[in-house]
Amino acid sequence: MNPPAQTLPAFGDVLAAAARIVPFASVTPVLRSRTLDTLIGAEVHWKAEHLQRGGAFKFRGACNAVWSLTDEQAARGVVTHSSGNHGAALALAARSRGIACHVVVPEGAVLSKLVAIEAYGATLHHCAATIAAREAACAAVQRDTGAVLVHPYTDPRVIAGQGTAALELLNQCDGALDAVIVPVGGGGLASGTALALRAMAPQSMLFLAEPAGAAETAASLAAGHRVVDFTPDTICDGLRGTLGEPNFALLQAHAPQVLVVDDAATIDAMRLLWTRLKQVVEPSSATVLAALLQHRQRLQGLRVGAILSGGNVDLAAAATWFASRA
Amino acid sequence: MNPPAQTLPAFGDVLAAAARIVPFASVTPVLRSRTLDTLIGAEVHWKAEHLQRGGAFKFRGACNAVWSLTDEQAARGVVTHSSGNHGAALALAARSRGIACHVVVPEGAVLSKLVAIEAYGATLHHCAATIAAREAACAAVQRDTGAVLVHPYTDPRVIAGQGTAALELLNQCDGALDAVIVPVGGGGLASGTALALRAMAPQSMLFLAEPAGAAETAASLAAGHRVVDFTPDTICDGLRGTLGEPNFALLQAHAPQVLVVDDAATIDAMRLLWTRLKQVVEPSSATVLAALLQHRQRLQGLRVGAILSGGNVDLAAAATWFASRA
Repeated sequence: MNPPAQTLPAFGDVLAAAARIVPFASVTPVLRSRTLDTLIGAEVHWKAEHLQRGGAFKFRGACNAVWSLTDEQAARGVVTHSSGNHGAALALAARSRGIACHVVVPEGAVLSKLVAIEAYGATLHHCAATIAAREAACAAVQRDTGAVLVHPYTDPRVIAGQGTAALELLNQCDGALDAVIVPVGGGGLASGTALALRAMAPQSMLFLAEPAGAAETAASLAAGHRVVDFTPDTICDGLRGTLGEPNFALLQAHAPQVLVVDDAATIDAMRLLWTRLKQVVEPSSATVLAALLQHRQRLQGLRVGAILSGGNVDLAAAATWFASRA
Repeated sequence: MNPPAQTLPAFGDVLAAAARIVPFASVTPVLRSRTLDTLIGAEVHWKAEHLQRGGAFKFRGACNAVWSLTDEQAARGVVTHSSGNHGAALALAARSRGIACHVVVPEGAVLSKLVAIEAYGATLHHCAATIAAREAACAAVQRDTGAVLVHPYTDPRVIAGQGTAALELLNQCDGALDAVIVPVGGGGLASGTALALRAMAPQSMLFLAEPAGAAETAASLAAGHRVVDFTPDTICDGLRGTLGEPNFALLQAHAPQVLVVDDAATIDAMRLLWTRLKQVVEPSSATVLAALLQHRQRLQGLRVGAILSGGNVDLAAAATWFASRA
């Protein structure tokens, strides 16, 4: 019922996704800041995906997956096992089509995120906090309901959907960007961006910002094979996933440069994005500014597109992070 | 040298200001949020003046004042006695014309704001924290340098400049707004908005959001004369000023409805603007959402323009306010 996991999406799928999601997704604005430009020494165009529906770019991929289903598939609903932004995005997307959404959530998931997912109309299925328990719970839901699994980042429909953010950004900037930078976790946004960039702006460099505490993409691209044996240790909850197989394959073909940043630099960058760009973004998004500041000497005078991936952050947690660096 | 304080600006002055500041001021975006619309029961168009240069609408008025000067006046510089957003805005505006800016700052002013004003190139003049000391210091600077005084909200050039925010908002919304709401302190933004609204959208209602701890505009409009005997007690540092004379005259002519909100409601509204609209706004801006939520029953189904006035807020102070309401 699902396409095979190894089917790699192509640029045509990104274009098809863009057409498919246009009635539902927001065209997010591109923001500018003279102060940040001066600090970085480059002209940075901030794609505000934290203003996307559900507060993250994830709605693009989830929406494309949901609206790619046949009526017969859709009638049985969708299921996923993300208790973060993808879970909320899939719930919202399912609601836009009026179909059921099941989200398997491990013990210990953040309560506020579960409340949001339920508020969007999804059914929660609780399970133990192991990968095996999660997969078993997902399989049980699929067996019981016939729901279609929508993986947070390996699903080709999701990758194609995430690619629409860069597509939109390039159109908003007349395609003339010297470089594009996005955060990388499981690689859905990164590989989708690679697809859009290769077709629309092949001269543009692709940079990926990755937290030092989950830098398996840097390790994988350096080793030439996926490094999956690591334990994430970062405040960037959106970037703890393991780089997926199709994501790795697409990124290998594009040869992006991975810029690794530590959480302290990410917190400082997040403070700058809050106080200078006046945008509430989550740590995952702030890795991008941390990377730009750290590598400013190679960016001088360039025109850079930067995707702010999401803005779902607990204000009390953020206050603690800021205080730790004051 | 200055126009008499009682000269009331007219709509033509707002149009002239818009033309004058266009090379320098940002056209700020208008943001939307389905969640906030649902909470309020209205279609709200959020004019993002916290994304204006200097982080507040104040740049519009300061820029109009600075670029209204003759070359001879300009050569002697400008002076003001605001240590808040107007001081920073005037410093930025003066820099855009390459002229001197003097800012008289009372003892006890917030250090971070003084640092910002100095970073924009202004000269600080310290004085005691009384009105008399401030006026004396301003007069001394004028006497010594010939600098032109640009009052934060009674100056007609400032009022006309602030009116350009509503002008821009109405154009961005095709003029079709049932109501517009802005915060009111000294009344520069409020009276400028009244001018724009009366000319461009006379059918639109004008609402003013005012903190309960500095509600002299509500009192003044109710009494039919300026009430100036009050001691402000509110976290909304941008709204502690006393309604000015020309501001009162312009507002009386428009008969706006003042919606008074307490600081607790403002803090809760600020949290919603941070977490739902993902915008870092200061308490003054949040009074607008607090007022809309408090008076939602009279706004049902309306199309409302709301001006987010500024985003200059200390993150640690904000964390304390949020924690006080958790």
